[in-house]
Amino acid sequence: MNYSEAQLLHFTQQVFMQCGMHQDNAQLAARVLLAADLRGIDSHGVARLSGYVRLFEANRAKTNPHWKVIHETPSTATVDADEGLGLIVAPKAMEIAIEKAKHCGTGWVAIQNSNHFGIAAFHAMMALEHDMIGIAMTNASPLVAPTHSKERMLGTNPICYAFPAGKHQPVVVDLATSAAANGKLELAQRANKLVPKGWILNKDGQDTTNPFALKEGGILLPLGSGETQAGHKGFGLSAIVDILTAVLSGANYGPWVPPFVSFLSPLPHLPGKGIGHFLGAMRVDAFRPATEFKTHLDNWIDRFKAAEPIEKQLPVIIPGEPEFTHEKERKVNGIPLNNQVVDDLKQLGQKFGIALD
Amino acid sequence: MNYSEAQLLHFTQQVFMQCGMHQDNAQLAARVLLAADLRGIDSHGVARLSGYVRLFEANRAKTNPHWKVIHETPSTATVDADEGLGLIVAPKAMEIAIEKAKHCGTGWVAIQNSNHFGIAAFHAMMALEHDMIGIAMTNASPLVAPTHSKERMLGTNPICYAFPAGKHQPVVVDLATSAAANGKLELAQRANKLVPKGWILNKDGQDTTNPFALKEGGILLPLGSGETQAGHKGFGLSAIVDILTAVLSGANYGPWVPPFVSFLSPLPHLPGKGIGHFLGAMRVDAFRPATEFKTHLDNWIDRFKAAEPIEKQLPVIIPGEPEFTHEKERKVNGIPLNNQVVDDLKQLGQKFGIALD
Repeated sequence: MNYSEAQLLHFTQQVFMQCGMHQDNAQLAARVLLAADLRGIDSHGVARLSGYVRLFEANRAKTNPHWKVIHETPSTATVDADEGLGLIVAPKAMEIAIEKAKHCGTGWVAIQNSNHFGIAAFHAMMALEHDMIGIAMTNASPLVAPTHSKERMLGTNPICYAFPAGKHQPVVVDLATSAAANGKLELAQRANKLVPKGWILNKDGQDTTNPFALKEGGILLPLGSGETQAGHKGFGLSAIVDILTAVLSGANYGPWVPPFVSFLSPLPHLPGKGIGHFLGAMRVDAFRPATEFKTHLDNWIDRFKAAEPIEKQLPVIIPGEPEFTHEKERKVNGIPLNNQVVDDLKQLGQKFGIALD
Repeated sequence: MNYSEAQLLHFTQQVFMQCGMHQDNAQLAARVLLAADLRGIDSHGVARLSGYVRLFEANRAKTNPHWKVIHETPSTATVDADEGLGLIVAPKAMEIAIEKAKHCGTGWVAIQNSNHFGIAAFHAMMALEHDMIGIAMTNASPLVAPTHSKERMLGTNPICYAFPAGKHQPVVVDLATSAAANGKLELAQRANKLVPKGWILNKDGQDTTNPFALKEGGILLPLGSGETQAGHKGFGLSAIVDILTAVLSGANYGPWVPPFVSFLSPLPHLPGKGIGHFLGAMRVDAFRPATEFKTHLDNWIDRFKAAEPIEKQLPVIIPGEPEFTHEKERKVNGIPLNNQVVDDLKQLGQKFGIALD
């Protein structure tokens, strides 16, 4: 089933408002979720709407947080999100980073006491229209084991960098620091297919190709998978994200990051507040004229697209390219939702008296 | 053969001075190289000394560069390294980043027109004594193919983050964004062993376990290896490094990065100057009090070390831990050099009239 962007935007906003969100907050949160659906990151869009609603119902998140800057310097700020959704607070914090970058070249904001912020790319890409490089990271509920361990200690902890180009689309690198994201496992589960070795371990820490292993107590492997394939590097990258987003901001880190799903309770004796994000904006012309940078980034893109392919019909894909293609197509043809997601949204609609179509 | 730190430091400094370096430059460059040997990164220490000498002999690098800041804002600077070694210019640029961080919370320096800077960790770790987080990246001679390609387009482009801890050693994540570094192939070559699938492709872009495949025109794979194991994420990370270090600084990027080895000439029509680095320093107390951060990072380290291991005798290793262990041991017992490196150094010694022992 395909739904138009406007349709889903309206529905999502109405649901958030029925939960108690003010209109501006609901609009913003809906926009962040829809950005994921448009860009083809189906796992992070309206498919998660009922999850956010359950967080409100469990009093695990506030609809209209009084977030505030609790510390700052000319190029940095620390924000307490007041248990709001990252969907709302991260864009506000990114505005602060951009403002600071205008004044002193770069701006960096660490956020504590937050909840999931949707796709990292939404926040990082806010910098692009200002000819700035945008950076966004978040930690997340523990699902990934550090190398040598079988314990869930890290989230899929994404890293996103967005770079403004000239004639081409921006380069947007947005990657989970795990070998595979949960969404890919769900695809395999639905298709009843095995997953490649190196994505997950079973609960005993042994290699498995069973896509249900994670649900059965297993763990995701960090980017790089096992030790011979440099999984310790994925662990290192995930550690960078966890430390910047949480140890630096005052949020929870490692296994203490509160679960997204409302049926699991946070651990006792938390070392911080909520989950953490880390955002940055760097003015390109704080380093070299923006037109020069963008001309060279265009040249970079052209050269990489022309790199000799292994198979002629499979050229190099520039980071962010598939998402721009999805967005262009889905703006026209609508967003395909699978039946499970449609059912989920219809249930929400019934609950709140909002029609999906 | 084991050599003491002091012995190799003295020898290296003398060789650099015989090449024409001023004493202070020679001392600094020698210190950066020895830091690699002490930390167990044998591929980046004195084993490379003759390579740097050959760069001088080929007029590919200047011994005493007149590096300068060509652009700046309160939190950023761009440095032209004047064809000097990164070994010398990167520490100077890191001092600028640290100074800027003192004044406005963070400092960021992009460097163009440089040559190889040794191990990234040396530069990033300069921030630690100031209770700052240090960041260092560099691009490098192309050896890695982007996903779908068999062309050498990217260097092993390392990323390093150093975080100050309290009672524990700092957390130092220092990783090449390739699946394996060249050094690991050399180890396999010497031991006449096959390498794991996923490290390299042969010149036709096919999987191989032949450790000599790179020398025979093959290519390194990005972190994550093939596409099912998320090699496109390694490509994305490497792209971030290439863009920050070179497209942003005005250095060469992608396949145009000049080769480290002097027997290969740079390509014609270069889009930039030399190779590029990107360095950063963030004051911890620009976000939260430094003692709080360090106490929580200690807690992070303790918790990760206690993560349930798959095999009892193989606990989780904190990023940077093996290097600190090496350093402690090698400061006492000296640095083991293999025969090939010893021969190489002895030849340099004969050439310049300096005794190795």
